[in-house]
Amino acid sequence: MRRFPEPISNLVAAFARLPGVGPKTALRYVFYLLQQPKFDLDVMARALTQLGERIQTCSRCYTYTESETCEICLDPKRDPSLLCVVEEARDISTIEATGMYSGFYHVLGGTLNPIEGMTPDTIRLRQLKARLETSPDVKEIILALSPTAHGEATIMFIQKQLASPGRTMTRLARGLPLGATLEFADEVTLTDALKGRKKL
Amino acid sequence: MRRFPEPISNLVAAFARLPGVGPKTALRYVFYLLQQPKFDLDVMARALTQLGERIQTCSRCYTYTESETCEICLDPKRDPSLLCVVEEARDISTIEATGMYSGFYHVLGGTLNPIEGMTPDTIRLRQLKARLETSPDVKEIILALSPTAHGEATIMFIQKQLASPGRTMTRLARGLPLGATLEFADEVTLTDALKGRKKL
Repeated sequence: MRRFPEPISNLVAAFARLPGVGPKTALRYVFYLLQQPKFDLDVMARALTQLGERIQTCSRCYTYTESETCEICLDPKRDPSLLCVVEEARDISTIEATGMYSGFYHVLGGTLNPIEGMTPDTIRLRQLKARLETSPDVKEIILALSPTAHGEATIMFIQKQLASPGRTMTRLARGLPLGATLEFADEVTLTDALKGRKKL
Repeated sequence: MRRFPEPISNLVAAFARLPGVGPKTALRYVFYLLQQPKFDLDVMARALTQLGERIQTCSRCYTYTESETCEICLDPKRDPSLLCVVEEARDISTIEATGMYSGFYHVLGGTLNPIEGMTPDTIRLRQLKARLETSPDVKEIILALSPTAHGEATIMFIQKQLASPGRTMTRLARGLPLGATLEFADEVTLTDALKGRKKL
């Protein structure tokens, strides 16, 4: 690739580090931005700086927040008997969007994946354990992890580590997603969908 | 989507304006950046600001440059008899990468597309005309536009407008791209590939 003027190649290099973005896509972004007013570039630059300066992780649930403790953890209307364990902070917004859950959250920060260096020590299992020890109110722990190989392994591991008589541990239901066709459903999903069938 | 802290939603909104990036992808970028050191965010922010401050369009060929005239236009080793007309500044880097072209460039800034407001007045046809009138050295104009409907229309239009006895006007060859299979080649491409066949 021809050497572009430095400001262009610097930004291409920065964008190319984003997940799923290669040099060609990065260049496309930069050429798009070159056609925008300078003001828009400054807005984006300011948003980036602010992200680094103003965002921290919540001291209780480890989601991203502007204050020491996040809005959800501070909300007195939340149900303290429910704790939902998620992989990443972004999963919280997905669950909140359903409007079906009113308990608290705990962000693990990953699933067990020894090859990529994710062990029980690098994800926030110790913190989860400590939190449960000081939270006698929690009656149900919902392990809302993705049903992938690593997610399943993590569910099994947490189940073994944190099982206690006074607490239920649950996981999200598996079944056919909305809009799926039976023809392309895999056996495991279909087995679960059959087992969990509902009376009409 | 749950309301994220303002610095997150601001950056999501900024990223979501990039071409081909929706709110979900934008959120993915932001969550990636949240895991990076603050220094990296500042580097990206600075690159954005610099893009707006330091980049301008070349006064001769209209590519992006840091000075008033770009490196290529100032290069005395370039062949003044060749002028290559491209759609966007990024196409220059693609052509330069071949190492096969030593002439100058002219960036049109688009192809004729009346529905999207690209008329002969909005693309840099007038500037091309003016440049040719003051450049008697140019003997060949290469119309290196993409062989799409709009590119073809632009080629035909420029051909009619700028044809002059002392100048050749050429276009890029059409044919099978490297790695293509005959089976999936369209008739137009295959016709051109047959017409332009080469002796071994």
